[in-house]
Amino acid sequence: MTSHFEPPNAFRSPRFSQLATFMRLPHIRDPHGLNVGILGIPFDGGTSYRSGARFGPREIRVHSALIRPYHPVLRVSPFERLRVADCGDVDVNPMDILDTYGRIEAAVGEMLGAGAVPACVGGDHSISLAIMRAVARVHGPVAFVHFDSHQDMWDEYFGNRYFHGTPFRRAQEEGLYDTKATVQIGIRGPVYGPEDFAFGQTHGVTVFRAEEIHRRGVEPALEAVRRLKGRKVYVSFDIDSVDPAFAPGTGTPEVGGFSSAQALELLRGLSGLDIAAFDVVEVAPAYDHAGITAMLAANVLFELLSVIAQRAATP
Amino acid sequence: MTSHFEPPNAFRSPRFSQLATFMRLPHIRDPHGLNVGILGIPFDGGTSYRSGARFGPREIRVHSALIRPYHPVLRVSPFERLRVADCGDVDVNPMDILDTYGRIEAAVGEMLGAGAVPACVGGDHSISLAIMRAVARVHGPVAFVHFDSHQDMWDEYFGNRYFHGTPFRRAQEEGLYDTKATVQIGIRGPVYGPEDFAFGQTHGVTVFRAEEIHRRGVEPALEAVRRLKGRKVYVSFDIDSVDPAFAPGTGTPEVGGFSSAQALELLRGLSGLDIAAFDVVEVAPAYDHAGITAMLAANVLFELLSVIAQRAATP
Amino acid sequence: MTSHFEPPNAFRSPRFSQLATFMRLPHIRDPHGLNVGILGIPFDGGTSYRSGARFGPREIRVHSALIRPYHPVLRVSPFERLRVADCGDVDVNPMDILDTYGRIEAAVGEMLGAGAVPACVGGDHSISLAIMRAVARVHGPVAFVHFDSHQDMWDEYFGNRYFHGTPFRRAQEEGLYDTKATVQIGIRGPVYGPEDFAFGQTHGVTVFRAEEIHRRGVEPALEAVRRLKGRKVYVSFDIDSVDPAFAPGTGTPEVGGFSSAQALELLRGLSGLDIAAFDVVEVAPAYDHAGITAMLAANVLFELLSVIAQRAATP
Amino acid sequence: MTSHFEPPNAFRSPRFSQLATFMRLPHIRDPHGLNVGILGIPFDGGTSYRSGARFGPREIRVHSALIRPYHPVLRVSPFERLRVADCGDVDVNPMDILDTYGRIEAAVGEMLGAGAVPACVGGDHSISLAIMRAVARVHGPVAFVHFDSHQDMWDEYFGNRYFHGTPFRRAQEEGLYDTKATVQIGIRGPVYGPEDFAFGQTHGVTVFRAEEIHRRGVEPALEAVRRLKGRKVYVSFDIDSVDPAFAPGTGTPEVGGFSSAQALELLRGLSGLDIAAFDVVEVAPAYDHAGITAMLAANVLFELLSVIAQRAATP
Amino acid sequence: MTSHFEPPNAFRSPRFSQLATFMRLPHIRDPHGLNVGILGIPFDGGTSYRSGARFGPREIRVHSALIRPYHPVLRVSPFERLRVADCGDVDVNPMDILDTYGRIEAAVGEMLGAGAVPACVGGDHSISLAIMRAVARVHGPVAFVHFDSHQDMWDEYFGNRYFHGTPFRRAQEEGLYDTKATVQIGIRGPVYGPEDFAFGQTHGVTVFRAEEIHRRGVEPALEAVRRLKGRKVYVSFDIDSVDPAFAPGTGTPEVGGFSSAQALELLRGLSGLDIAAFDVVEVAPAYDHAGITAMLAANVLFELLSVIAQRAATP
Amino acid sequence: MTSHFEPPNAFRSPRFSQLATFMRLPHIRDPHGLNVGILGIPFDGGTSYRSGARFGPREIRVHSALIRPYHPVLRVSPFERLRVADCGDVDVNPMDILDTYGRIEAAVGEMLGAGAVPACVGGDHSISLAIMRAVARVHGPVAFVHFDSHQDMWDEYFGNRYFHGTPFRRAQEEGLYDTKATVQIGIRGPVYGPEDFAFGQTHGVTVFRAEEIHRRGVEPALEAVRRLKGRKVYVSFDIDSVDPAFAPGTGTPEVGGFSSAQALELLRGLSGLDIAAFDVVEVAPAYDHAGITAMLAANVLFELLSVIAQRAATP
Repeated sequence: MTSHFEPPNAFRSPRFSQLATFMRLPHIRDPHGLNVGILGIPFDGGTSYRSGARFGPREIRVHSALIRPYHPVLRVSPFERLRVADCGDVDVNPMDILDTYGRIEAAVGEMLGAGAVPACVGGDHSISLAIMRAVARVHGPVAFVHFDSHQDMWDEYFGNRYFHGTPFRRAQEEGLYDTKATVQIGIRGPVYGPEDFAFGQTHGVTVFRAEEIHRRGVEPALEAVRRLKGRKVYVSFDIDSVDPAFAPGTGTPEVGGFSSAQALELLRGLSGLDIAAFDVVEVAPAYDHAGITAMLAANVLFELLSVIAQRAATP
Repeated sequence: MTSHFEPPNAFRSPRFSQLATFMRLPHIRDPHGLNVGILGIPFDGGTSYRSGARFGPREIRVHSALIRPYHPVLRVSPFERLRVADCGDVDVNPMDILDTYGRIEAAVGEMLGAGAVPACVGGDHSISLAIMRAVARVHGPVAFVHFDSHQDMWDEYFGNRYFHGTPFRRAQEEGLYDTKATVQIGIRGPVYGPEDFAFGQTHGVTVFRAEEIHRRGVEPALEAVRRLKGRKVYVSFDIDSVDPAFAPGTGTPEVGGFSSAQALELLRGLSGLDIAAFDVVEVAPAYDHAGITAMLAANVLFELLSVIAQRAATP
Repeated sequence: MTSHFEPPNAFRSPRFSQLATFMRLPHIRDPHGLNVGILGIPFDGGTSYRSGARFGPREIRVHSALIRPYHPVLRVSPFERLRVADCGDVDVNPMDILDTYGRIEAAVGEMLGAGAVPACVGGDHSISLAIMRAVARVHGPVAFVHFDSHQDMWDEYFGNRYFHGTPFRRAQEEGLYDTKATVQIGIRGPVYGPEDFAFGQTHGVTVFRAEEIHRRGVEPALEAVRRLKGRKVYVSFDIDSVDPAFAPGTGTPEVGGFSSAQALELLRGLSGLDIAAFDVVEVAPAYDHAGITAMLAANVLFELLSVIAQRAATP
Repeated sequence: MTSHFEPPNAFRSPRFSQLATFMRLPHIRDPHGLNVGILGIPFDGGTSYRSGARFGPREIRVHSALIRPYHPVLRVSPFERLRVADCGDVDVNPMDILDTYGRIEAAVGEMLGAGAVPACVGGDHSISLAIMRAVARVHGPVAFVHFDSHQDMWDEYFGNRYFHGTPFRRAQEEGLYDTKATVQIGIRGPVYGPEDFAFGQTHGVTVFRAEEIHRRGVEPALEAVRRLKGRKVYVSFDIDSVDPAFAPGTGTPEVGGFSSAQALELLRGLSGLDIAAFDVVEVAPAYDHAGITAMLAANVLFELLSVIAQRAATP
Repeated sequence: MTSHFEPPNAFRSPRFSQLATFMRLPHIRDPHGLNVGILGIPFDGGTSYRSGARFGPREIRVHSALIRPYHPVLRVSPFERLRVADCGDVDVNPMDILDTYGRIEAAVGEMLGAGAVPACVGGDHSISLAIMRAVARVHGPVAFVHFDSHQDMWDEYFGNRYFHGTPFRRAQEEGLYDTKATVQIGIRGPVYGPEDFAFGQTHGVTVFRAEEIHRRGVEPALEAVRRLKGRKVYVSFDIDSVDPAFAPGTGTPEVGGFSSAQALELLRGLSGLDIAAFDVVEVAPAYDHAGITAMLAANVLFELLSVIAQRAATP
Repeated sequence: MTSHFEPPNAFRSPRFSQLATFMRLPHIRDPHGLNVGILGIPFDGGTSYRSGARFGPREIRVHSALIRPYHPVLRVSPFERLRVADCGDVDVNPMDILDTYGRIEAAVGEMLGAGAVPACVGGDHSISLAIMRAVARVHGPVAFVHFDSHQDMWDEYFGNRYFHGTPFRRAQEEGLYDTKATVQIGIRGPVYGPEDFAFGQTHGVTVFRAEEIHRRGVEPALEAVRRLKGRKVYVSFDIDSVDPAFAPGTGTPEVGGFSSAQALELLRGLSGLDIAAFDVVEVAPAYDHAGITAMLAANVLFELLSVIAQRAATP
């Protein structure tokens, strides 16, 4: 493959101009020939408090206009190394989570089948289950790095087994990832009781609470993350892992979270991982201000693309 | 019945003080002994565009603090004539519209059984179907006054028969109201095609488009409404019948709507109707500004209570 | 007097530039030699619901930058006819309404003594009492035109006789205006009971409710206003007379109010009155959006200045 | 021509989904084969007060998602009658108005050359001059319908001959339109002096001030507009012709403007005109709330497309 | 006592549902039988800059809906250990600080008399004086931990001895607390002169400026706090001790403050203290965004309840 | 010189009162007799993304009302040591950057000629070039401390050599500062490629990226800064050096920036420098919330004034 897609030069086409695509990349629905396909999944039917994450992909597209193509810390130009495009959105069924799961699984599966890494932009966290189903079908149970203020391993909600608080219990039950090769970072906030942590503990999940990151820095967590090298890894980034000051536009914010600088440092620490797929979820634009949450999410996307690009063979 | 509930005197307990209940009325879950029970129904799982109406009851409670107890145009003190209370919310199932319908129907049915008129505060428009089911079980098919910019008589959405665009087709199919005794006011905005109006036309629904109200005033519509006197009437007020300038906090706004003054004039024109139950729906607070939409909704509630009170026997 | 103050030409000094004064007029504290002195009175200690009108003068200065100097309907250039300046603010005592009343009365009295018409910018409506005291000391009981959604003739609040709901009862008791030469325009919204209107009725106040203006237009009200010609008139404009869609930034909004177009038409109808002093009150910027309320208040100020200028001798 | 573009059915692809294009139409840069090409022109370098209209096209795309394809008042489905597409944006030079004018003229000229009607979405009002240059080159001096609160016929600003207050003086000087076949609707607000109106008066422009529309309704203005039938007409819609309550998101708002209902009624009155090209300008999203201004602009676009479609031969 | 109040399970009653009480606890006005009573004190008549804290209790109730019942760091379930309820608000007199002081003192005194710890939610900081009066009457002069960016030990304001800048000078003069057992944390920002600190220094107050916390961490401050063990302690938490990025919704913000993570770490360091009463003050919702300030205040409340619960005997 | 200007005592003139000037200082256009003149430069014609910094000076004036006169960390009262005044704004030409450059250069030159240090408040970053031209004419090439997330050393934009991304390349080419005595602090975010850093590297600029400040603290950067002692220094503070959580109101935000506490610590580290002039730029109020960005900018201004005051001879 010799040609790559680049955002148009902002010195000749203003950033505020033209259709908003992810990072101003071309819009190409067919993932064949892509190394990474960015896929919007605007579903928020699994939200228990503030709804609105259905507008996440739209706003992240808008605010990703500020992303430039070279990562000066990881020293990589992801769009030179990788063919990346905006593959549009999965046409979710806003009223039906199971139907939506089928649609997500199909779209992500098609992308994986075409050899592209799915870069998924939510939507609420319930979508991760469907993505992981498609990933596990190709790669088997993957290692897992999960940034979040909540473990999302509850059992059910109003008798429903599927909502944004349960994906990683369901995924474990379905054998989609290896809990012993799982690192959760940023967990914090009041829960229902100590038993809320039992599921993760029983299954050997490694947890770095936000308090530890604040006290001891990112290094211990990154050390645990680096042990996942050599495995296919799924990365899930819930924007509420970051503090509401930096990411107000989300549905179930928790105070005491990361700064954006800590978030970037953590993401750069994933360097060297073999990322099979990833998601950035829970951006609810109606609660955002001046696009700061969407802009942070766009940067999370860029960081993860850069990690993938670093590992890719030079073109 | 000799004692009535009144909002506390704002000259002795400030409006911004104490728990927010509808119009600062007492919170009484049991409808027995009430003439009207105000019931929140915070469900927005039927929303096709901007979600968030689940926070409607909460915000309408907050902004109803400004309502004082006497209606100077209708010359009635509804809380002197009627025992009215805030009956709390139906505990909806945010993930499941059918389960939620059952819960709504039960709560509204209980209220009707206790002899109280249900005053329902949504929530998105899908809830009207469940309320009408309970109403029709007691009163049979009712007459219907419907304020909205959309007819909400579409057939399905993504294969789902229940969402906020279909309640009044379903309700017709279920025989819950008399389409020939139905007046829709405020309809406007682009639709999918002329066939969108066929269902209502076929069933003899009387429609007053917003353009007519703007051109000819409210009188022709009110004349049609007055023909419903002597029947049990259901009233449904979608806040998007009002223009987005007056009611920005809603999910599917349509420009060209009523002013708040026109809305009040229309509501006062319902004077003399025998209201069996009513709803005020589609307030989505995340899109509101300075509470103006919620405040308008609180006034709609007060207008309809005043219409009911006018008709009630003097205490 | 030969020289007049003009806003700097916006074609040479941009509107967004320089210190924000009322209409970009010079800041001159001493009223001597002025025809009209614009005086900020940033007091909101008399507010019963949403506080914040203390920031009214500041924001109205900012948004008055858009006012240009010629009134094309009244066909007058007020700043050519009149020497007008921004006289700064009264240094109110935020904790003490009686002390503040003294300060307002002194400042307004000084301005009247210097021969300038006081154009007062609040602040909440409680300030009108102090202004009227100063005015009545010079002119005796004045005629009165009052735009508002509330009569502000209640008796007391928590045992306090002075707050933004009582100024025009106190002013009547103190003999500051002639209730029989008083026109209130825009009254609406629920009240405590029919007895709320008794004070005004007893004293012969003429009331034009908002509903009448909406139904019959402005002419009947203006006819009543024109009967005040030949008398010294005090004009008080509460921004909540206008609908919250047009003026969200206020403390006790009432739906069903004027459009901005109706407000302008009413104000222009004051043409020919001999305005002794006026106020524009109740702009609470924390609840405003995009400055639309403050901008409307700036236009109210300009309309009233134009009415005064029309009557003034040609320079 | 047999195939037409339709917005995807929102009952199968949610409105909040996929890339935001104007009315969810296909994105086709090449205007050949189109009847109408919608062209964003995100330039705000001609703004004298609040800048930010450069984000207009982006936000109007987002909020046009709510537009459905059939116009029930004009009884036309514009996308069935016409091939319409989103042709992207002109890549303006944000620092250089003259360079930008060249780019606009080229893009609009190309579209006209391809036989498509240019539907231009600004940007500030300075862009109209460049569009009219391209239009006049093809059609000669056109008739002109101009909705605005300002005439935009000033002479210069800080010595610059080109900014958003001068386009229609320059256009007259360049002979791009026929001032005697020009109708301006909505003019209002303070100006610098009576001489501000001289240019328009001298050249025979017909003006309907906002006050007249409020007093006498839209009919007199529409009568004047209908006299333009049989000529090629340019239509320019400045969103600030509408009142700030309905369109807060703009740079130089003027109180006392149209309601959205009046704006729609006026636009529908253009029915029968032969529109050569049009623009919708001055949406400044940073000052908007809940997208109500952008949504109104999207409806203006839809109204004008519907007027064009009505006149087109049935397919 | 065997029964305790718990927030309803959010897996059966959605968080956005029902009346907003503090942490969705029952509303019980009578403090008898409670261990802790949460009391709103919506008074902002002591505010010198941005008013609006009168709406603090209302908004903190709303945003406390996200609090779950178990504290995973302190490992305590406060609502299992303690009977806690929402005791409503003190009906303050918005116009009269001295009258309000009497009302606060009575309500807090009644609560203390009933054996419940008062957990007070303001309102502006002036309320602390009245609470401390009631506390000192029962417990004598208490130790004091004070989080704030200002010492609030000024002498007077416009000749008034009572406002939100003076409570802790008045409290010292009245002998309500032991200045030598007082720790102030978070002080920063420009003051009037070095003499501003004299009062605290003279009376032996220990101050940890924000700069020290940023440089040396929380440990030195917590060491000082721990020296207060064994004494009855009053805790006052001014939300402006936190940086405006984390707490924009406040009246006199100061840049350079704590992150929310630092605030939580400091509060958890109070573990082991014998808290006699506490307050959380200065949340001004009109300046908040997406509820992040109110949500932080709700967490402060939960942290302090957890500290109290930890110390309580196991049930 | 014996008399100094002080902000009026806020205990006698409320902060929200009177005209908004920088820190409530007197407005004196003539810089003669001043030690420091604060000069607004409301130009944003050099902005490539979000425009609106033209309103920066106005909003910073408003929110500087909270600044008190004594700096407790640097232990200095700048207004006692220095005569400082608000010198108003440069009347920029909003349409023409070169004309504006001439006006800025003239105003700054006049101030320097009068012996006052120019304290410039933007406006976008393009204005720094014109200020530095005036400074270099008096002082020759200066040392330079530059806080920013971008180096602003690009070469051109759309063929324009002057915009907010190029000032420090142009300034180098014009010999206005000594690149080897230049420290840039806060640089971060994606760029176009590694060659973006070449210009600075070639010319010996010392760069402290944001990541280094986060990891190693401020001391290494301050050490580099202290090496500039003994030279005339220009300081430029782009508010986007701070994280968008703390400074959302800016045009090209970059996540991962400083906290406000870090910004203050860095600024205080300039203590001892001989500041010839400085600027604070890129505050775009339309994107701010609750004034937190403008308030931070006001504090930056106060910090730099305090650094200048510290070095000044005692009065």
